Amino acid sequence: MEVKIYDTTLRDGTQAEEFCFSVDDKIRIALKLDDLGVHYIEGGWPGSNPKDVGFFREIQKYHIKNAVVTAFGSTHHPARTTTSDANLKSLLDAGTRTVAVFGKSWTVHVHEALHTTLDRNLELIYDSVAYLRQNGRDVIYDAEHFFDGFRAAPDYALATVGKAIDAGAECVVLCDTNGGTLPGRLRETFQAVKERYPGVSLGIHAHNDSELAVANSLIAVEMGAVQVQGTMNGIGERCGNANLCSIIANMCLKMGVECISTDNLKKLRQVSRFILELANVPSNRYQPFVGRSAFAHKGGVHISAVERNPITYEHIDPGMVGNRRRILVSDLSGRAAIKRKAADFGLKLSKTDPVAMQVLDELKELENQGFQFEAAEASFELLVNKAMGKTKKYFDLVGFRVIDQKTSEGGEPVAEATILVRVGGQLEHTAAIGKGPVNALDNALRKALEKFYPELKTMGLSDYKVRVLPGLPGTAAKVRVLIESHDDKDSWGTVGVSHDIIEASWQALVDSLNYKMYKDEKQATNGDSK
Amino acid sequence: MEVKIYDTTLRDGTQAEEFCFSVDDKIRIALKLDDLGVHYIEGGWPGSNPKDVGFFREIQKYHIKNAVVTAFGSTHHPARTTTSDANLKSLLDAGTRTVAVFGKSWTVHVHEALHTTLDRNLELIYDSVAYLRQNGRDVIYDAEHFFDGFRAAPDYALATVGKAIDAGAECVVLCDTNGGTLPGRLRETFQAVKERYPGVSLGIHAHNDSELAVANSLIAVEMGAVQVQGTMNGIGERCGNANLCSIIANMCLKMGVECISTDNLKKLRQVSRFILELANVPSNRYQPFVGRSAFAHKGGVHISAVERNPITYEHIDPGMVGNRRRILVSDLSGRAAIKRKAADFGLKLSKTDPVAMQVLDELKELENQGFQFEAAEASFELLVNKAMGKTKKYFDLVGFRVIDQKTSEGGEPVAEATILVRVGGQLEHTAAIGKGPVNALDNALRKALEKFYPELKTMGLSDYKVRVLPGLPGTAAKVRVLIESHDDKDSWGTVGVSHDIIEASWQALVDSLNYKMYKDEKQATNGDSK
Repeated sequence: MEVKIYDTTLRDGTQAEEFCFSVDDKIRIALKLDDLGVHYIEGGWPGSNPKDVGFFREIQKYHIKNAVVTAFGSTHHPARTTTSDANLKSLLDAGTRTVAVFGKSWTVHVHEALHTTLDRNLELIYDSVAYLRQNGRDVIYDAEHFFDGFRAAPDYALATVGKAIDAGAECVVLCDTNGGTLPGRLRETFQAVKERYPGVSLGIHAHNDSELAVANSLIAVEMGAVQVQGTMNGIGERCGNANLCSIIANMCLKMGVECISTDNLKKLRQVSRFILELANVPSNRYQPFVGRSAFAHKGGVHISAVERNPITYEHIDPGMVGNRRRILVSDLSGRAAIKRKAADFGLKLSKTDPVAMQVLDELKELENQGFQFEAAEASFELLVNKAMGKTKKYFDLVGFRVIDQKTSEGGEPVAEATILVRVGGQLEHTAAIGKGPVNALDNALRKALEKFYPELKTMGLSDYKVRVLPGLPGTAAKVRVLIESHDDKDSWGTVGVSHDIIEASWQALVDSLNYKMYKDEKQATNGDSK
Repeated sequence: MEVKIYDTTLRDGTQAEEFCFSVDDKIRIALKLDDLGVHYIEGGWPGSNPKDVGFFREIQKYHIKNAVVTAFGSTHHPARTTTSDANLKSLLDAGTRTVAVFGKSWTVHVHEALHTTLDRNLELIYDSVAYLRQNGRDVIYDAEHFFDGFRAAPDYALATVGKAIDAGAECVVLCDTNGGTLPGRLRETFQAVKERYPGVSLGIHAHNDSELAVANSLIAVEMGAVQVQGTMNGIGERCGNANLCSIIANMCLKMGVECISTDNLKKLRQVSRFILELANVPSNRYQPFVGRSAFAHKGGVHISAVERNPITYEHIDPGMVGNRRRILVSDLSGRAAIKRKAADFGLKLSKTDPVAMQVLDELKELENQGFQFEAAEASFELLVNKAMGKTKKYFDLVGFRVIDQKTSEGGEPVAEATILVRVGGQLEHTAAIGKGPVNALDNALRKALEKFYPELKTMGLSDYKVRVLPGLPGTAAKVRVLIESHDDKDSWGTVGVSHDIIEASWQALVDSLNYKMYKDEKQATNGDSK
């Protein structure tokens, strides 16, 4: 049995309260999802969100290995025709081979949201799907509110799906849009659709409002669904979408479903974390399969049993999803964990290599301080290079001072930075103001360095994120700063940690500039561009 | 159909990483659970935890209205007899009418955890249950690892349950201890037990390692289970236990199960929050039914539909579980959302009221600047009050200066802030250092204000978030700071936006302090505590 994974983190996921991705974030996530091996990546709704138009333009510059990037949109407006409808036009303009189009299955929605007649809705579905097919697109049809619609008026709900099939949709996805459907009813409804349209490819799109989205998705797969839609970590509107992390793991490890490869499954935890980091949202330690506590053992009896035979208190081998067992009472974790971590970044460490040991010790110390390298690969690479004695020192800091001053309640504050650095044998002292203290420091540092390293002019900072770490409360807490930088060829992430946000930003900024110079030299040597 | 709720928050819940309750906490939670109407409150394992002995002693001083307080323990030690076993003695000493005793169903566990023979394990189960019955206790038998045990050796697993029944257990609870069982297998296993022991009261105890605990519990109820064990908010070891909040709501509102009363169901959200507060654990805003985002609507289309007819995007009426709809004020939403939001704060806006128009205009302007009030309702309320002329000015800023200085490459920077404020007619000039510039400013401001407003000492900052806004690139970009604050009664969010991170933090900080003073006055006036 084979099931396709349709990821909508970039579209439905962004409907979650507090989730927001830049175009650049979305590109990075899409590349990760492709690398994980999902089959479809729903990139956005170009007809509803101008930012999504940018995504579909940008993603064309990248090589996507496995996944089909998909644009999402609605059936055309009741008052328009297929050719005059801006939404359908933007769907085609997105330039994807496959499009997903959703239509109304529930009479209440036809009347109260679409403000049209039941017959006109059937036309909208048929015409929209047919028009997209005529324009050479593969079409996935999302039957919005299908389960509620079927409950209210089964024949009509079935008829809407029939229109999409007749018009050439390659897969019909039954959506529990409000997330209120219980497993028993889901099963019955799915059965009814199968009986009415035998041989048609069906999919499932579940929401988690009743805490049943994963179960409902798996039950649909048992019933024959060949596509599962959801989001990584289950992020999404209200209580979220079906959590693909759990669905993928359950299908691969327990149901014998062909879905993503065993090797790729080991990346599950890392991809899950990567997305939360970019969203600047804390991970849920209790999250099944990928959470930090998912294989944590607390009680002494559990620990001795699990160490003798893991199946006594573990439903799967945590390594299969890139997670690991944690023994909470003892401090056994340290070194082994860091070795595993280094391996995540392609660094093979042996117990006898003293350089490797130094990397291990330094990494352990930095992780204790709150550093985290999952979204800061450039900082990690610099750290490893440093331990290997491969780091070139581009400049030394003698000191900096940042002053931020506000002189009236309504006034704008003024931020000024001075910096003293040594490059080669030469001292360089600069001052700059900026849009805020970090920008002032950034400006002063560039002013000092660009004189010596003109290539720094080609780089820019594309994102800047701050996360408060657990520990001291409120503004006294440590912060982790993640900076994402880019030039015309690459983008890279760096990290800094301190109680002082300016210091943390400084660390990430310095790594970012160093990495730019380092990678330019490396590329000049290797003669490649990535 | 009637189902009993067996709450094990105070026993299995405390196995969660990072959860810890004092005896006093446990008493307070037990009283809340009793008030909610759960049928059993498992208070602890007196044989394993001295703190739990204290709980059972203390709880006897309180009047429990509905619930049966229950002590938990294991079958007796293989090398002892019922009368010489310390664990059974402490179970009796707990002085509860009902006890829950767990035994091994899985051969692997009999051998590798209990280190005894299969036959001896059967004796332990029979003898332990019989002994507790002889001592006048009602006995609930928890068949640990039943689903894994049944899979490995069905006849033996069934035999263990048979011993408990023969010895007089009033209910046999089938446990998915490792949380790895899929719904289909759970259904088959449950069916097999029903067929072998017709007429016996069965219960379900599920864990969430596969994100299926709620579904598995509901399926067991469909199969005839008369008792559901779980914890509030699903807290528990590894990925947690079955979440009673979702189970109770689904059973009462969708399955027609007699369980807790409609009136009590309205307390669900409050009890859920109360327990998280006592555990000092942040609530999950996406939690089904009771989470802050569970009925939050973001998209403009959703908002207008849901206002016309709530069932379009809500699976239940949020008021049934003590929650409420939230219309998120974001750039995706229009004037209707803002009107609706203002109404939440008791402000009726009409299109012709010039004050209302001012609020709308100001909000629109602030949203253009990058303010976002989704998670900053306190800032929004202050803004509305200001437009209505209801704002009290607690202090005026004359000026501040923040200096952050680093004097060597490896050194720690020093952050210092000075602040000049006017309170009433009085000028107050303070200076403070801090862990970073924002903390220094926070410290200096509190130093200045706590003299006049001592109630500020009861509040703290629980979270501090920074987001870079699209626009100018890198460190020159605008940032939005969200601060979440709390005192012993409430928590509230505030927001600030600026190119300068210190200024943005300042705005959110000032709103937070102002809101604290404002809400204390409001609560004192209204004479209520919330």
